[in-house]
Amino acid sequence: MGVSLKDVAQRAGVSIKTVSNVVNGYQHVTPAMRARVQQAIDELGYRPNLTARHLRKGRTGIIALALPELGNPYFAELAGAVIDAAARHDYTVLLDHTAGERRKEILVTQGFRTHVIDGLILSPIELETPDLLARTDSSPLVLLGEREYDAPYDHIVIDNVAAARSAVRHLAGTGRRRIAFIGARSEIARQPAHLRLRGWREELAACGLPHGDDLVATASGYGRADGAQAMADLLDRGARPDAVFAYNDLQAIGALRVLTTRGLRVPEDVALVGFDDIEEGRYGTITLTTVSPDKKAIARQAVDCLVQRLTGAPDAPPRRVRPGFDLVVRESTLGRGH
Amino acid sequence: MGVSLKDVAQRAGVSIKTVSNVVNGYQHVTPAMRARVQQAIDELGYRPNLTARHLRKGRTGIIALALPELGNPYFAELAGAVIDAAARHDYTVLLDHTAGERRKEILVTQGFRTHVIDGLILSPIELETPDLLARTDSSPLVLLGEREYDAPYDHIVIDNVAAARSAVRHLAGTGRRRIAFIGARSEIARQPAHLRLRGWREELAACGLPHGDDLVATASGYGRADGAQAMADLLDRGARPDAVFAYNDLQAIGALRVLTTRGLRVPEDVALVGFDDIEEGRYGTITLTTVSPDKKAIARQAVDCLVQRLTGAPDAPPRRVRPGFDLVVRESTLGRGH
Repeated sequence: MGVSLKDVAQRAGVSIKTVSNVVNGYQHVTPAMRARVQQAIDELGYRPNLTARHLRKGRTGIIALALPELGNPYFAELAGAVIDAAARHDYTVLLDHTAGERRKEILVTQGFRTHVIDGLILSPIELETPDLLARTDSSPLVLLGEREYDAPYDHIVIDNVAAARSAVRHLAGTGRRRIAFIGARSEIARQPAHLRLRGWREELAACGLPHGDDLVATASGYGRADGAQAMADLLDRGARPDAVFAYNDLQAIGALRVLTTRGLRVPEDVALVGFDDIEEGRYGTITLTTVSPDKKAIARQAVDCLVQRLTGAPDAPPRRVRPGFDLVVRESTLGRGH
Repeated sequence: MGVSLKDVAQRAGVSIKTVSNVVNGYQHVTPAMRARVQQAIDELGYRPNLTARHLRKGRTGIIALALPELGNPYFAELAGAVIDAAARHDYTVLLDHTAGERRKEILVTQGFRTHVIDGLILSPIELETPDLLARTDSSPLVLLGEREYDAPYDHIVIDNVAAARSAVRHLAGTGRRRIAFIGARSEIARQPAHLRLRGWREELAACGLPHGDDLVATASGYGRADGAQAMADLLDRGARPDAVFAYNDLQAIGALRVLTTRGLRVPEDVALVGFDDIEEGRYGTITLTTVSPDKKAIARQAVDCLVQRLTGAPDAPPRRVRPGFDLVVRESTLGRGH
C-alpha cells in the first residue's frame, strides 16, 4: 500500500489539488482530466482514505443491497454491476439476502443497521405498499424490480409489459400459434409475474392468438426446478404449446430439460424464450433466446439515485427510472446456424 | 417488528433466561432446548438487538467474505451458505469482490475497513505467501480454497488431489483411455489448478494411462468461455480425447457447448466431468457428472473458525480443516437413463 495523493499527481502529471478534486467527485474537472487521473489511480492502486472522508460527512461509506436470491445468476450478475457502480462513487456494498420473504424485506427497510449503512437498494418480492408507508427509518431507499408500489421512493424498473410483448411478438413472427406462459405465481393477489403475464396476454390478443388460462402454468418459485414443474404440468394437461415464454431464464432452462427428456425438439416442436439474459443461457446445448434487461444501466441508475439523495437532494420528488432492454435471439427459437 | 425475548419465551414455553442463553450462544443448553427456542425465534421473526450486544463486546457484528467472482455460481452458492452459517452466530456478512486480483486481495487482508468488520473470510486467487506474512492488521482471517500458503492462518480446503483422482478413476472405470485435463492456468508459477492437475496426473499414472502435456489444455480464466476455448484448443491440435476432466463446472459447460457444436456426442464420443456441483449442471440437456465439495460444511467451518478466534481463542494454532466431497455421477459420463 502506501500510495499517496502525491504519487497519483506525479504519475498523472497534474497538481495534487486536481487529483483531490477527481477523488472527491467535484464536477468542475474535464472528462479528459478525470480519465487521466483515474488511469493513474488504477495503475498505482491508490485508495483514498474513504473512512475518514465519509466519516467527516457523517456517513459510513457503505450501502446495502438486499436481494431475494444469490443463487439466481441474474441477481449475482446484478450485484456485481452494483458493486462496480458503487465503487465509482467510493461506496462499498454490503450484500443482504432476503430470500424474498416479506418479514426479512420489512426488516431491511426498517433500518436495523443504520449505524452501519448510509442507504439501501432493495429488490422486493413479497413486500407490500403498506409496509413501505409504515417505514419510520429516514435513510434513503431505492427500489428495484417489477413489483409496483404507491410509495414515495425512487424505483428502477424496465418496462416489463413492453419487454414481454417483444418476446411474444418474436414467437408469433416465427409462425407459432399456441404460445404458453410459464412461471405465473399461484397466488394471484401478490403476482410479481403479473406485468410479464399481462404483456404476454396483450400481445397475443393483438395478434389474434389464443391467450386463455389453459396456456398459463403457475410456479411457486423462480428456479430451474419450478420451471421444470410448470412445463411438466402444461404438457400433462394436454395444452400442446408450440412455444413457451418463461418468466425468467432459470425457469426456461428447467422447461428445456423437461422438453428434452420427453423427446420434444427445441425449437422444432416447441420454441422457448426466457427473461434475464444470464450467461448460462448462452452456453446450453441449445442456446436460449431471452429478454435482456440492461443490468449495467439498472445498477448505475440505482446507485446514482441513492448517491444523489445522500449527497445533494434528499427531498427531491421520487423518480421512476426505466432502463432499456433487448430481445436476444438464439437457437431456442430459430434453431442452430440461423 | 416488536417481537421481544418474552414473546419467544412464551411461544417456546421456556424461561426468558433460557431464550437469552440460546440467543447468546451459551453452551450449557441442550440441543433439544436450543431447537425448540430456535423454532419459536424463526416463527415469530424475533431479531435480537445485535448492535447493542456486539458493541458492548467491542465488535460490529459484521464479517467480510471476499470472493473472486460473484458471477460464478459456485461462489454465489458458497456465499449463501456463509450468510446462513454467520446468521446462526448473529453475524451479518459484508460481501467483497476481489476479481481474483492480487492488488484487491492484498487490500482486503490489510484491514482497510477494520472500523466496520470484525473479521475476514478470503478465497484468494493471486495472493502470495509473502503478502500474507507482510500483513500488519491483526483482525482474524480465515482462508478458503486450493491455494497453498505457508502462513499462520486457518485454512478450509477440501482434498483437491483426492477429489481429482476420484473423478479420473471414474472415467478410467468406464473404459476411457485418453482422459484430458482442461483449465490448467497458463502461468505455471501461480497455478491454482495445480492440485487438481496433480490429482489427474497421479491417478492416470496409477492406472497406466497417458498423462502427458499433450492432454492438458490451459485457460486464462475460470468461466464458460475459458472452458470453450480450452476444449477447442485441445481438439484443434488433434489430442483426440475420449474423456475430459475440467477444472470446474463452468469450464465443463463451455467444453460441452464446443463438443456439441462440433458434432461430438457426450458421453458416447467424449465423456465429461466437472468440479463444484453448481445447480446449472443438473439441468443441461446433458446433465453433468461432477465433484461436489460439501459447500455447507466449508461455510460452517469457515465461520466457526472465525467466530472462535473472535470470541474464545484468538491465539490458537492455525488449523487446516478438510471438509468432504462426493463424486456425483450423471449423464455426461454414463449417458441418459443410467
